[in-house]
Amino acid sequence: MSYTEDLGNRAKAAEPAVASASTQQKNDALAAISRALRENMQLIIDENAKDLKAARESGMSLSKQDRLKLDESRIEGMAQGVDQLIAFTDPVGQITEGFTRPNGLRIVKSRVPLGVIGIIYESRPNVTVDAAALCLKAGNVVILKGGKEAINSNLCLGAIMRKAISEAGLPEDAVQVVESTDRETTTALMKLNGCIDVIIPRGSANLIQAVVKNATVPVIETGAGNCHVYVDASADLDMAVEITDNAKTQRPSVCNAIESLLVHKDRAEDFLPAIAERFKEHSVTIYGCERTRAILGESVLPATETEYATEFNDFVIAVKVVEDISEAIAHIRRYSTKHSECIVTSDYANAERFHREVDAAAVYVNASTRFTDGGEFGYGAEIGISTQKLHARGPMGLTELTTVKYLINGNGQIR
Amino acid sequence: MSYTEDLGNRAKAAEPAVASASTQQKNDALAAISRALRENMQLIIDENAKDLKAARESGMSLSKQDRLKLDESRIEGMAQGVDQLIAFTDPVGQITEGFTRPNGLRIVKSRVPLGVIGIIYESRPNVTVDAAALCLKAGNVVILKGGKEAINSNLCLGAIMRKAISEAGLPEDAVQVVESTDRETTTALMKLNGCIDVIIPRGSANLIQAVVKNATVPVIETGAGNCHVYVDASADLDMAVEITDNAKTQRPSVCNAIESLLVHKDRAEDFLPAIAERFKEHSVTIYGCERTRAILGESVLPATETEYATEFNDFVIAVKVVEDISEAIAHIRRYSTKHSECIVTSDYANAERFHREVDAAAVYVNASTRFTDGGEFGYGAEIGISTQKLHARGPMGLTELTTVKYLINGNGQIR
Repeated sequence: MSYTEDLGNRAKAAEPAVASASTQQKNDALAAISRALRENMQLIIDENAKDLKAARESGMSLSKQDRLKLDESRIEGMAQGVDQLIAFTDPVGQITEGFTRPNGLRIVKSRVPLGVIGIIYESRPNVTVDAAALCLKAGNVVILKGGKEAINSNLCLGAIMRKAISEAGLPEDAVQVVESTDRETTTALMKLNGCIDVIIPRGSANLIQAVVKNATVPVIETGAGNCHVYVDASADLDMAVEITDNAKTQRPSVCNAIESLLVHKDRAEDFLPAIAERFKEHSVTIYGCERTRAILGESVLPATETEYATEFNDFVIAVKVVEDISEAIAHIRRYSTKHSECIVTSDYANAERFHREVDAAAVYVNASTRFTDGGEFGYGAEIGISTQKLHARGPMGLTELTTVKYLINGNGQIR
Repeated sequence: MSYTEDLGNRAKAAEPAVASASTQQKNDALAAISRALRENMQLIIDENAKDLKAARESGMSLSKQDRLKLDESRIEGMAQGVDQLIAFTDPVGQITEGFTRPNGLRIVKSRVPLGVIGIIYESRPNVTVDAAALCLKAGNVVILKGGKEAINSNLCLGAIMRKAISEAGLPEDAVQVVESTDRETTTALMKLNGCIDVIIPRGSANLIQAVVKNATVPVIETGAGNCHVYVDASADLDMAVEITDNAKTQRPSVCNAIESLLVHKDRAEDFLPAIAERFKEHSVTIYGCERTRAILGESVLPATETEYATEFNDFVIAVKVVEDISEAIAHIRRYSTKHSECIVTSDYANAERFHREVDAAAVYVNASTRFTDGGEFGYGAEIGISTQKLHARGPMGLTELTTVKYLINGNGQIR
């Protein structure tokens, strides 16, 4: 048996006990995890130090080293995240639909865990705890495959969680951290049909595309966000500036930040100078179409297909002046990754039309795209933001980590 | 541009008009399709005759030739199926959830079409019409790739539908039938990410596995059904015989028929002879464990792993005598394809436990597995029965051919 098959079999063996665990049992396990994280802070910091040493020696960038780093405050943050999950409603066992057929069959649709979830992610070790806790609360078994840069941290966090889960009376294999960091193991995981029910990749566009291309297990694609704000002819100037600035600069590295700005031609003269002035505060690099450059000057770099198609994740934006809302919607249809899109307008018909015709997980009228987030939507923690259309779209919380089964009661019905 | 890319681009171009079509427009198109099918019966029969001629010459089995055949009655049946869809509720635009956040953002979750659906199927040409009509009613564009045995029939049905859709004012590319029947085209279709939103394979286990293995577009796996009836110690004898017989013999070729029978050891002596007697009416071939053979005699063939794992789709069954419900559930966990599973019991606790612990799309107490069907559930027509856990589980009707988007209304909210 290969290493990954062994992982898969252990997960399947743990599945029935985790799937049928009561909410109380799962909450006890979560409480045990957060307690164990706090009790083992020094151990975690020591193991994390090994990863940080290797990162320094390999010349990793400082910003990436920072993402890798665990200190008391960050470990406390992870523990608090686990604690918060305890208060969340358990979706397992919810009846979403039910009816009685003319032949007397009683049919109800009940939420059940997905089963075994594989998470493939990159450097940030907090994902190890966040993802494990979310999966566990929804009754799922999880196999966690993190980046090799964080392997010591991840294995340490995994061991702590497994011990805590076991002490709380659930199988330790409810959470498994993959020890091997080679590419073959990752690829084998993606093809473990029959053992893994769904793979959720979290990380860079490259990682996600590699999973989409290679997995035979069903995948939930997350995260790619080439998002737009369109400033319509009737937009309130101040509101347009505030929303555009917030959507671009409040946290440009995340998927719900915008990458492109579309401006109705009648507002180019007043809006573009106003937003350019605001962008100076963050030294935003602006690429623009010819009309944008005619208004804002040569400091604006020429925008090509490439810039409109790029998720910069940085203080960079591509700007285009459009004839009307039709051109704006067509542009979005062409370049959007269907994550979050926004119109700023005072026109009722255009607001309605934008909602109707723009195909994205979240379509905003007069609000920043930065709200596409499990916490901001009031769903609490999220496992990611789905940018595909199957199963889940937008922020995925506990409910999205479940499926349904039909429970049918009869008294001898046959066809 | 390749042939499949052209198909994909045409589908994407048609998508906005189809997705935003009103229920009335879609119903008009459905009515036009059913009318056109009736008006063109002779044309369809003539084109189908070409396929039947090729089938005879290739030595196709008579039962397969029968599945391929279209006559007036079958075409009328297809037209009636399309007519029935007109009365179904349009899922597009339904609001499934909605709330206002403390910051005043109003968020609603609205049903929208999936977009472009690829259906890959085998010989029966009625799928061409059934699938196209279901996709259209849910606002989706469809690309249909049928088997080469039915290519003349499928292209003819496709041309008739496209003309009808166009006359009803929607783009003809709402429905495209793939002209090429080679394997390369099918494989290319499965990798048309960005143009096709989901692939649904319909047909043999081999076809479905080939799609699951090769597709990079998200797939909904359908149809594999290694289903069981478990006769518990407290089962009513007559009910157990009726349910088992119905689940096995009423239509053994379909996925919701059972393939294996598990019997509590205390009921082996009375139940097994009773069901064996009934099975004689259909000359059912029985494979059995040693205990089964000790009771029913040498005419029962020895059952091995292979038989318990096989979806016979025929008048064949594998029987096992089990110690108790725990062994029955463990056996099901090992061999089930998680489609439909049944317990026959008079024991409340065992009924509850079977519901809770058996992981399948449909779990029955005291009713035949044959009810797992869109029509029998009251959902009307179905595009297939999902045996995966993502997106949809069990019979998939119009609702399962949609996804959601979040529509957010603000008045200047930023983070």
